[in-house]
Amino acid sequence: MSALERIAYADGDTALTGWLARPSGPARAAVAVFPTFMNTTPGVEAKARALAAAGCAALIGDFYGPAAPHDMASAFAAMTALRADPRAMRVRLRATLEALEGLAPGVPVIAIGFCLGGMAVLELARDGADFALAASFHGLLATPLPAAAPIKPRLLVCHGDADSLVPRADVTAFWEEMDAVGADWHFLSFARVEHGFTNPLDAMGEPNPAYDATADRQSWAALMGLIDEVAPAR
Amino acid sequence: MSALERIAYADGDTALTGWLARPSGPARAAVAVFPTFMNTTPGVEAKARALAAAGCAALIGDFYGPAAPHDMASAFAAMTALRADPRAMRVRLRATLEALEGLAPGVPVIAIGFCLGGMAVLELARDGADFALAASFHGLLATPLPAAAPIKPRLLVCHGDADSLVPRADVTAFWEEMDAVGADWHFLSFARVEHGFTNPLDAMGEPNPAYDATADRQSWAALMGLIDEVAPAR
Repeated sequence: MSALERIAYADGDTALTGWLARPSGPARAAVAVFPTFMNTTPGVEAKARALAAAGCAALIGDFYGPAAPHDMASAFAAMTALRADPRAMRVRLRATLEALEGLAPGVPVIAIGFCLGGMAVLELARDGADFALAASFHGLLATPLPAAAPIKPRLLVCHGDADSLVPRADVTAFWEEMDAVGADWHFLSFARVEHGFTNPLDAMGEPNPAYDATADRQSWAALMGLIDEVAPAR
Repeated sequence: MSALERIAYADGDTALTGWLARPSGPARAAVAVFPTFMNTTPGVEAKARALAAAGCAALIGDFYGPAAPHDMASAFAAMTALRADPRAMRVRLRATLEALEGLAPGVPVIAIGFCLGGMAVLELARDGADFALAASFHGLLATPLPAAAPIKPRLLVCHGDADSLVPRADVTAFWEEMDAVGADWHFLSFARVEHGFTNPLDAMGEPNPAYDATADRQSWAALMGLIDEVAPAR
């Protein structure tokens, strides 16, 4: 397993650090991987490596910069600060897309994310960002800035129906928001599955009781199926 | 492409005719394939052959027996008669499961269906039938006899969000019905996709405007992913 490559980029004056997994051959797609509110973790790095194994260049984005959190409390505070200004947050997220496009030019661009990262890819879509596919895994579906213009990427939302952070009212409101702008979405919901179902380990590196092997496997397969559509293997 | 094998079976005094697609080697699973209200069609036969190619014995069930319809009007009348007695309908459906189990014993049993057939596999699950996986493709989700006992199969529901026969209220009611009995469901919904999205041809053999290649492909992949879980390839 090769080490991830450290990538320095920036959002204005804020230095950011991304982690890049490269495929063994030419990339079929460039994938921005937005982590959880803990920023990058071994679980997210495993997903980036899986994308590289599938022929994609995968860049794990940095939400926070030098003030990156070291524990759950500081991560929660950092996330709260980031979300407090939704427009600034979108600028921060776009910096990762731009860095990615410089690293793997000329191939379809995809953004995926987990928890806060799932919300992030939907925020990019709502912001009008031009890319091929956005995939959210246990992401928050509500937004302070509902989509007002056409959504460019196709959307895949993989959701644990028992996610305490995303009640069913948020699900139907999301459908209505997306339909109002004609978005092309696939929604995959898993009964009795909770927030964070893709992570075998929790934010502290302990076994995650919300991990669900089936939901993890089937949601990842759904992503691979759509990557095959927007960026066919060469 | 080998011919399907004609299988004679019965529901009490009603003679039924199934069509069996066999895999080239030993079957990994036995799959009952419930067709649309038109009974078997070339589109459904293609799905049975795809299951055989994936290592499953696939038996297309017969809803109607000797009174099988020859046009849409008579098919609609036959479906209406079948659905008029929900308990008798369930007995009819169980006859196909039983015939299948005799043809391919000792392997996990799966039931899939399209339109009326999608409703059929959910009705079998609601009736307490003991099998491994039920998969509905653009099936009706409402029922005259809501589930009252635990659901034995895992459930995969593949749904076109724009299906005029299945409003969103039916979707959320289905989730509530299934959760009340602790069912293990995966729900896959496709934006702007209409009823009958898996069929390239309509009931009259003409191109089907509701056909959606992406929804067809991704819903089938979801089925294959779950078959891999309940009946791993040997």
